[in-house]
Amino acid sequence: MKKTTTRLADGRELIYYDSRDDAVRDAVDRRPLDRVATASEIRHDRLLDDSVAIASHRQGRTYHPPADECPLCPSREGRHSEIPAADYDVAVFENRFPSLAGDGGRCEVVCFTSDHDASFAALTEDQAALVLDAWTDRTAELSQLPGVAQVFCFENRGAEIGVTLGHPHGQIYAYPFVTPRTERMLRSLAAHREATGGRNLFDDVVADEQADGRRIVLEGEHWLAFVPYAAHWPYEVHLYPRRRVPDLLALDDDARTEFPQIYLEVLRRFDRIFGTCEAPTPYIAAWHQAPVRVADREDFALHLELFTIRRTSGKLKFLAGSESGMNVFINDVPPEAAAERLREVASE
Amino acid sequence: MKKTTTRLADGRELIYYDSRDDAVRDAVDRRPLDRVATASEIRHDRLLDDSVAIASHRQGRTYHPPADECPLCPSREGRHSEIPAADYDVAVFENRFPSLAGDGGRCEVVCFTSDHDASFAALTEDQAALVLDAWTDRTAELSQLPGVAQVFCFENRGAEIGVTLGHPHGQIYAYPFVTPRTERMLRSLAAHREATGGRNLFDDVVADEQADGRRIVLEGEHWLAFVPYAAHWPYEVHLYPRRRVPDLLALDDDARTEFPQIYLEVLRRFDRIFGTCEAPTPYIAAWHQAPVRVADREDFALHLELFTIRRTSGKLKFLAGSESGMNVFINDVPPEAAAERLREVASE
Repeated sequence: MKKTTTRLADGRELIYYDSRDDAVRDAVDRRPLDRVATASEIRHDRLLDDSVAIASHRQGRTYHPPADECPLCPSREGRHSEIPAADYDVAVFENRFPSLAGDGGRCEVVCFTSDHDASFAALTEDQAALVLDAWTDRTAELSQLPGVAQVFCFENRGAEIGVTLGHPHGQIYAYPFVTPRTERMLRSLAAHREATGGRNLFDDVVADEQADGRRIVLEGEHWLAFVPYAAHWPYEVHLYPRRRVPDLLALDDDARTEFPQIYLEVLRRFDRIFGTCEAPTPYIAAWHQAPVRVADREDFALHLELFTIRRTSGKLKFLAGSESGMNVFINDVPPEAAAERLREVASE
Repeated sequence: MKKTTTRLADGRELIYYDSRDDAVRDAVDRRPLDRVATASEIRHDRLLDDSVAIASHRQGRTYHPPADECPLCPSREGRHSEIPAADYDVAVFENRFPSLAGDGGRCEVVCFTSDHDASFAALTEDQAALVLDAWTDRTAELSQLPGVAQVFCFENRGAEIGVTLGHPHGQIYAYPFVTPRTERMLRSLAAHREATGGRNLFDDVVADEQADGRRIVLEGEHWLAFVPYAAHWPYEVHLYPRRRVPDLLALDDDARTEFPQIYLEVLRRFDRIFGTCEAPTPYIAAWHQAPVRVADREDFALHLELFTIRRTSGKLKFLAGSESGMNVFINDVPPEAAAERLREVASE
């Protein structure tokens, strides 16, 4: 893998990740770009004790552009995108319309491939491995920034989830605080350690899923994929490396090598259940990593949480009163049934 | 107000709330209804330390029926709905497809009016007052049930929020546990009391909003409506009675009398901003009340949280990776700008 770091016309960083070690990335961004005034502000909600990013400059952001104006495609004569090169493998750049900016964190866009019409599920294993390398490197780099408390790599996919660009891409948010969801996990982890004389809750949860077996979706030598016992979404799959590590940086070579196989298969099963003809399966894929600077970060378990907002083909799960008003999820699909369906559509 | 309690053919409770004291509600439900086997199950997520309701029977529930098959309209010759009467003011019944059932709680449907094509915003003040009476009475009744820990009255409105019935209605969830969102508020309340030598956080938040003034939407003699400082949604309004009370039961007559005026005006402003022509403004309105049996319930402040999922007319706010994956909201509309817009569209 070769990494080349450069800058866009307005000073934002652009990083190429190439599979070929002899790739040359010297294309220059010739657009007359002004720096966007990024006025993102983190506000604390005193009642909920959480933080909200107020990012007013984003209302003007690119919204469902036609394919021939895609800002994530390579540039070509007369059509300059966010990526000056005429082709690329994986490219990462600072978001021009970041939700988090300045002291308030950093937002990056990860282009998975230069092929506008592809999807993550359509990548080869080598391509997916390169994306994993890019996520890992970005986690390392962003963790070094002084204000960053937590690095979050994720993919939103599908117009129904609010994705405004069809080009296959994900995002990375480097938060200036530990997020409420991670805080909850850390609290549960500490309580369990206390209650059990030192046991690790992640280890126990994964071991219990393995022992029960009814919700297992896919077993690799180095990864386990299952629908969690108390799944919040109708089709939700968690992927854990069998050897617990706190973050992507700590993944060993065996786990890195097997990951593309496992993840691509799970994504393809989603597509088999929900179809890809009318519209691609909308999903959110979220990497959970230990925060950068918390005391017990070694106890955290890196894992990927994947879910679709479909309940069945053609029907969506909405977050309504109970979910949005009280944070109580209602799930109409028993996790055991979802897991069974996800096993049925396995590749031959 | 006259209240009449009866039962539907499958044993579910139906309660009429009438403005006329001489209303007679003796219509009998003649449908050949079997009781729906309600297999709802509450599961605890050990990592997030929250509860999920798994309600598999709900997949067969009524889904966008044509208007002439609306189950919330009054019954007429040859067309039997959930409400046997030929007309009604406000009717409440146990949900046939409950998310919470048995020991796991109870779900009710609140029909705001018999007029299928109306909306809450289109109710008269008297009609809205009757709905407030129904919410209050249901809170009293459901709080008496042995397993109930918290009563939540809310309205989901609009197909974009997943509402499958167009008839104006809300819902009531009686949870068998204190919800995570309320727990967070109770924790903040206790921490603030501790840190300030006994001050009430709700009182301080409301007083600070009043003193700042930039986010005030509407001031009544007995109610205050404002966009909160750290609003999670682009257009979010919180309504607090000026005299703090823990729940709807404790509201005094002055506050009860003024509420319809204030709330109807806020809802109508939402409609003025987002239009009602193509589609009604989608919103969630959520009553926050003190849980039934917690120690410091008297410190809690009843209030209504209202928000729309629209960012601007025609654009929706989606919960994507940051919100769903990490519980960190990104809000593109500064609360001060939302409040200003909501003041601009005041009724003459």
